[in-house]
Amino acid sequence: MAIKLKTDYLNGFVEDHEYSLIKSAVAAAHETLIEKGDPAEKPIGWMTLPVDYDKEEFDRIEAAAKKIQKSCDIFIAIGIGGSYLGARAAIEFVKGANYNAMKKETPDVYFAGNTIDPDALHDLLSLCEGKDICINVISKSGSTTEPAAAFRVFRELLEKKYGEAGAKERIFVTTDKKDVPGKLKHFAIEKGYETFVVPDDIGGRYSVLSAVGLLPIAVAGCDIKKMMQGAEKAMRDFSSTDIEKNDCYKYAAIRNLLLRKGYEIEMFVSYKPSFMYMNEWLKQLFGESEGKDKKGLFPASVIYSTDLHSMGQYLQDGRRIIFETVVDVLESNYSVKVPFDASNIDNLNFLADKDFHYVNKQALLGTLDAHVSGGVPNVVLELDKMDEENFGYTVYFFELACALSGYIGGVNPFNQPGVEVYKKNMFKLLGKPE
Amino acid sequence: MAIKLKTDYLNGFVEDHEYSLIKSAVAAAHETLIEKGDPAEKPIGWMTLPVDYDKEEFDRIEAAAKKIQKSCDIFIAIGIGGSYLGARAAIEFVKGANYNAMKKETPDVYFAGNTIDPDALHDLLSLCEGKDICINVISKSGSTTEPAAAFRVFRELLEKKYGEAGAKERIFVTTDKKDVPGKLKHFAIEKGYETFVVPDDIGGRYSVLSAVGLLPIAVAGCDIKKMMQGAEKAMRDFSSTDIEKNDCYKYAAIRNLLLRKGYEIEMFVSYKPSFMYMNEWLKQLFGESEGKDKKGLFPASVIYSTDLHSMGQYLQDGRRIIFETVVDVLESNYSVKVPFDASNIDNLNFLADKDFHYVNKQALLGTLDAHVSGGVPNVVLELDKMDEENFGYTVYFFELACALSGYIGGVNPFNQPGVEVYKKNMFKLLGKPE
Repeated sequence: MAIKLKTDYLNGFVEDHEYSLIKSAVAAAHETLIEKGDPAEKPIGWMTLPVDYDKEEFDRIEAAAKKIQKSCDIFIAIGIGGSYLGARAAIEFVKGANYNAMKKETPDVYFAGNTIDPDALHDLLSLCEGKDICINVISKSGSTTEPAAAFRVFRELLEKKYGEAGAKERIFVTTDKKDVPGKLKHFAIEKGYETFVVPDDIGGRYSVLSAVGLLPIAVAGCDIKKMMQGAEKAMRDFSSTDIEKNDCYKYAAIRNLLLRKGYEIEMFVSYKPSFMYMNEWLKQLFGESEGKDKKGLFPASVIYSTDLHSMGQYLQDGRRIIFETVVDVLESNYSVKVPFDASNIDNLNFLADKDFHYVNKQALLGTLDAHVSGGVPNVVLELDKMDEENFGYTVYFFELACALSGYIGGVNPFNQPGVEVYKKNMFKLLGKPE
Repeated sequence: MAIKLKTDYLNGFVEDHEYSLIKSAVAAAHETLIEKGDPAEKPIGWMTLPVDYDKEEFDRIEAAAKKIQKSCDIFIAIGIGGSYLGARAAIEFVKGANYNAMKKETPDVYFAGNTIDPDALHDLLSLCEGKDICINVISKSGSTTEPAAAFRVFRELLEKKYGEAGAKERIFVTTDKKDVPGKLKHFAIEKGYETFVVPDDIGGRYSVLSAVGLLPIAVAGCDIKKMMQGAEKAMRDFSSTDIEKNDCYKYAAIRNLLLRKGYEIEMFVSYKPSFMYMNEWLKQLFGESEGKDKKGLFPASVIYSTDLHSMGQYLQDGRRIIFETVVDVLESNYSVKVPFDASNIDNLNFLADKDFHYVNKQALLGTLDAHVSGGVPNVVLELDKMDEENFGYTVYFFELACALSGYIGGVNPFNQPGVEVYKKNMFKLLGKPE
């Protein structure tokens, strides 16, 4: 497994001497990143997580996943932000965007507690009718409005359906480690729910390879050990501080160079629909890490060739404020060939017997040339394939690139002060007691 | 049904005199819009479509939808861009994002031909196993690579499964009106497939209320007559050229004013997950219409409160280059209440027995205040609810706003020259014969 950076499509946008000139900033950002600090202020546990995780808890996650697989048709992961996107991204990355619809031995996985829309909740409740259900609430504080309100709804449903004793075998709680009376952890212990830990030294958007993401991912039948191995390989592959030997750091440097030139939007591009929620995960990772102090690249995303027929026109010829970061998946999981058709009304017989993967790749190459000639710098990241190991590898690559990028850009990549403002306003409007 | 524009959250960003000063540009853009032209160059058939559509074909669409509903478990709409996003947006808007998973009398609806990824195609083929299938290929030329290649695959599947005679009852073709030997229309007639028309005077991204979108939408059990009625009401509601009497034109003016001030990104915001593909449709509509000649607002989208926990930090405190267009849906389709919980570990008992819709609305209001105080102009569009009539109404509102916006900004909102570039490169790489 690997990610390799290709800079061919940056020619004319970034000059060689710029790479030399940014090396000292990269080295300085690296020093800032690894400098010891209070884990609450500087949560960098994700950096060593691939080798330094709780093995006992990891085994319990795998055992819980097996138990859940045996006892339900529908598994509902209740969480928002980093307690939602990582798991969803992983399942679609490995199992495809149509995982729930496919015939399989593992439960359907739905996500709740990431919206307050009654219509979405109503629909999820209806499709639970007559089905066996397990739930996993994922919330450090236990009091974030969206997951807490959804947890009330689904806990009530399970207790009505299975009784308190039955429900406790079906409710799994991923929350703060500390047992404080009146908090979710304490409540879970009292009720007899199995609990897992949201680590103190890993922020939400960096937490997918902790219990936060791993339980839902394992329930869907993904091999989570392989994910950790992939992350570990990335940890070792991207340990140099020299950007000529570290594609991850070089990518972080390039992002900053391009922003300084006026390319304000980073468009994450994939040619695989199963990458869509990985794109969403990337938007949280980068947007929440860098969008502060009135700074930061604006992260956007597309799936091509689908969106070449929607956003393609803008990319080709709109305002020149965008660069693209294209994840080129070198190998597909399946082979499907274009059939021969005697009528040839579409003039595509020249593609007969060619694999769709090959055609998709030519679309990618043709688009790179088209967009570069239109004035859009393109960063290409070659990814071997979409499986568990490469998921772990990809996660680590982008987390590290993001943290380093933030420090190069002069922001703290580990806080998110702006997220509180809407909550305060909302609670005021809702008349929350002090 | 209605959409009402609220400008309260633009105070401090747009001054009263600016509305006066842009009135003449709005009037001029309106004149340009309604000026007669060659329909091939200036396809404005969508403007009168709500009253001026082919009633005989409309009845055939409804009859075909009934036939399809009776004869299959899975219906596959094969199209890309405007032959994909509109139908998908409509079905999710009216039936919810989990339509396929819900218990229902109508077939599952899947979309193919919008990607060249073999893994996505493989997964769709597997979930067709053992199911009855109908397909609708939607392509004006019949030779666009993505849908044409997918049509080969599914036509072959149907002919193997049902024989030529059986397959012809299950294949529906929406394509060019003209019967030219060697083209899809001609082929469809020869084969005995029922055909529908991609209108000559309506471009792809404006075509959802023609046969292009209506057949898949009707198959999913939506009342397409109500959609046309909704569009007709919008056509009448937004006929004034005075922005004080026309919220649609005023919205078009505001978008241009904000862009001129440096707000380069328009973020489409909804608080309902079932609006997600409507957002995707909006991104094509505006991005493809305005992203040219190195100009145009960059369209992006989010679903809140979900994405307040991913992109929220950026919106609150990142680069100040964004304004938001918030579609506030005033009424939900279902009521779900927050349960009381004696333990109250989440401190949310002050919300007990409150409807989720109410909580969602306070999140919207709290976010508006938060983002405006953070320096983000907010346009609010109040939409009555999410049903068929309001879908038609919303589509017409945005199509008209987009066309007028384009002319105010000095671009041709009806062409998409940039979309061809990647195709040319791709065909060259694929070695397509001349």
